Amino acid sequence: MTQTVIFNRVYNSFIRNGVTKALGFQLIKAEKGLCEINLPYSEKVTQQQGGFHGGMVGTLADMAAGFAGLSVAPDNMEVVSVEYKINFLYTGKGGHLNAVGKVIKAGKRLIITSADVFHISPEGKSTLSAVIQQTIVPVEKKY
Amino acid sequence: MTQTVIFNRVYNSFIRNGVTKALGFQLIKAEKGLCEINLPYSEKVTQQQGGFHGGMVGTLADMAAGFAGLSVAPDNMEVVSVEYKINFLYTGKGGHLNAVGKVIKAGKRLIITSADVFHISPEGKSTLSAVIQQTIVPVEKKY
Amino acid sequence: MTQTVIFNRVYNSFIRNGVTKALGFQLIKAEKGLCEINLPYSEKVTQQQGGFHGGMVGTLADMAAGFAGLSVAPDNMEVVSVEYKINFLYTGKGGHLNAVGKVIKAGKRLIITSADVFHISPEGKSTLSAVIQQTIVPVEKKY
Amino acid sequence: MTQTVIFNRVYNSFIRNGVTKALGFQLIKAEKGLCEINLPYSEKVTQQQGGFHGGMVGTLADMAAGFAGLSVAPDNMEVVSVEYKINFLYTGKGGHLNAVGKVIKAGKRLIITSADVFHISPEGKSTLSAVIQQTIVPVEKKY
Repeated sequence: MTQTVIFNRVYNSFIRNGVTKALGFQLIKAEKGLCEINLPYSEKVTQQQGGFHGGMVGTLADMAAGFAGLSVAPDNMEVVSVEYKINFLYTGKGGHLNAVGKVIKAGKRLIITSADVFHISPEGKSTLSAVIQQTIVPVEKKY
Repeated sequence: MTQTVIFNRVYNSFIRNGVTKALGFQLIKAEKGLCEINLPYSEKVTQQQGGFHGGMVGTLADMAAGFAGLSVAPDNMEVVSVEYKINFLYTGKGGHLNAVGKVIKAGKRLIITSADVFHISPEGKSTLSAVIQQTIVPVEKKY
Repeated sequence: MTQTVIFNRVYNSFIRNGVTKALGFQLIKAEKGLCEINLPYSEKVTQQQGGFHGGMVGTLADMAAGFAGLSVAPDNMEVVSVEYKINFLYTGKGGHLNAVGKVIKAGKRLIITSADVFHISPEGKSTLSAVIQQTIVPVEKKY
Repeated sequence: MTQTVIFNRVYNSFIRNGVTKALGFQLIKAEKGLCEINLPYSEKVTQQQGGFHGGMVGTLADMAAGFAGLSVAPDNMEVVSVEYKINFLYTGKGGHLNAVGKVIKAGKRLIITSADVFHISPEGKSTLSAVIQQTIVPVEKKY
């Protein structure tokens, strides 16, 4: 598939996610085996102390890693997360999060991915905030 | 602490989460070492095929397990997730999710927790949807 | 399958593991969806401070959970671990470890399992030492 | 600390592990924030189909990541694994495994690490076999 076809495939799936519109996720890049997504800070994504909520960091990481996986999944298939594991390194406030997902191994039955999540402060300072390992599987596309 | 004091402690933290209002999380129960939270289905919490988004399931599980941890954390402290690992078992649509978080071990430095997430269909059928293991740490309370 | 057939299936796989003989794992029980394995303390399984090595606790947990999975896998198939996640709760010395593995969900493509590992002191005191979540897949049996 | 001091610190801990002698782990490199360990193939480390046992891969990964963590732990402290999560990508037979552990974040209370495990075939072909994420904590040194 060409770069444009891959980007469109990921984008068409990405915009179907209800969370995308509700929370403001932004698709930055989608290439073969790679996906980059941002999440701007807002009151919708915070925990009790005002930082980005761990669940939101996890959702962002799940999406970046999962869409990297979709970019290498068999044609006309969708993907679903089997499991993921996330370590939190830094809790940022303000600015936005930037997640870069990558495919570690694209097997026939399972796709193993990872993502790094960075907090980008309003001043542009980047701090590694979380790392994820994820397993996804291709599933029937129902749309 | 009495049951009421524990519930209030968890509730006061729970309502400070921006995600609570944005996505509709509902605190059902908070006792010593246990917390139960619901998440109703809505367009805000879906993935590309219309099911509950894995990241939302993870957020719900993170909250139920984390607030179970808060219920046993030292007085006047808050908690933050160090890491969690979630396995997805079933992708539900409609109805709501119900997560039951429990403390596995309350150590001095680390609190180990778990949660089971059930999908409750509009007809009331309950299906185990996800299981999580989590590590949290007590941190300074800033509010 | 009868209980005896299930036990034999698991046992025949268990004794083919080179680690079983090398480190002294003992198959205690194997039923449909459940497996129990012990690991006696010895100098072969310790870390730098003399306790059971985390990797050995992980190996024991991987085996108990994995063989629970094998007990429900399609006939004439073997299983292999896709991934696991372990939290360590207590580091025991002496005595033995007892792991109880269970199937959480037996899907067509994936089997999700868990195990609890207990340290049993020489005096018989039982302490929860580790919890694991695991994903396994059926694979071709080559023996 | 100088490179020699760091290597000796790790080596002195490494050789105290009972599993090291029992299974043949080899310390290849230990620098600030990095540790490399090999595990030769033998009948002691196999699963039922003759490949490296997942638990042994996990033990190797736990050690490489954990000793990378020890290299940055406070002086005169030891470390212990809090948890780890491993994804298996390839099951090798023969040759040896090579694990490279790295520190992702060295915090005051927690050290977050990762490791990549490669299978090196007898012919020298290298295949990524597993990836791990790990959390460790500094603990009192008792020797």
